[in-house]
Amino acid sequence: MLGAMQQGHAELQARVVLAQNMRLLRAERSLSQEALADLAGLHRTYIGAIERGERNLSIDNVERIAIALGVHITRLFQETQTPEQKP
Amino acid sequence: MLGAMQQGHAELQARVVLAQNMRLLRAERSLSQEALADLAGLHRTYIGAIERGERNLSIDNVERIAIALGVHITRLFQETQTPEQKP
Repeated sequence: MLGAMQQGHAELQARVVLAQNMRLLRAERSLSQEALADLAGLHRTYIGAIERGERNLSIDNVERIAIALGVHITRLFQETQTPEQKP
Repeated sequence: MLGAMQQGHAELQARVVLAQNMRLLRAERSLSQEALADLAGLHRTYIGAIERGERNLSIDNVERIAIALGVHITRLFQETQTPEQKP
């Protein structure tokens, strides 16, 4: 089934999933947003905005965050099982 | 192990992996770049540039491409086993 027929007005979700996973993985590592920002070479306020789903960030920055968290980039896009965390 | 200690000068790979997966998945579906661009709501030349690894595209656009190809976004970042396809 080609994507477009399903796409219709499929709401883009990747940013929301990324935001949830970042918060989860960062908390698991007891990292502050500032510490993660330093590790990833990004600005603290940018990390905060990403975690609020406010930034349509680039692949390179997603990869920098994945490296900083010590996970493969795919991990940041995997849906986790906590529906109540949906914004 | 926190990402940064490994990161050092770890070369960012996600764009290269995405480019390979896009070409592979598009070919499997016998889609031209133009057809994929139409499905994803993007410009044909942009699809070409992405497949050459020349674009640091945003998550929303990666997700549009994934939807157009009918795959989950994580699929676009999974390394495939064909080393000779490395640019």
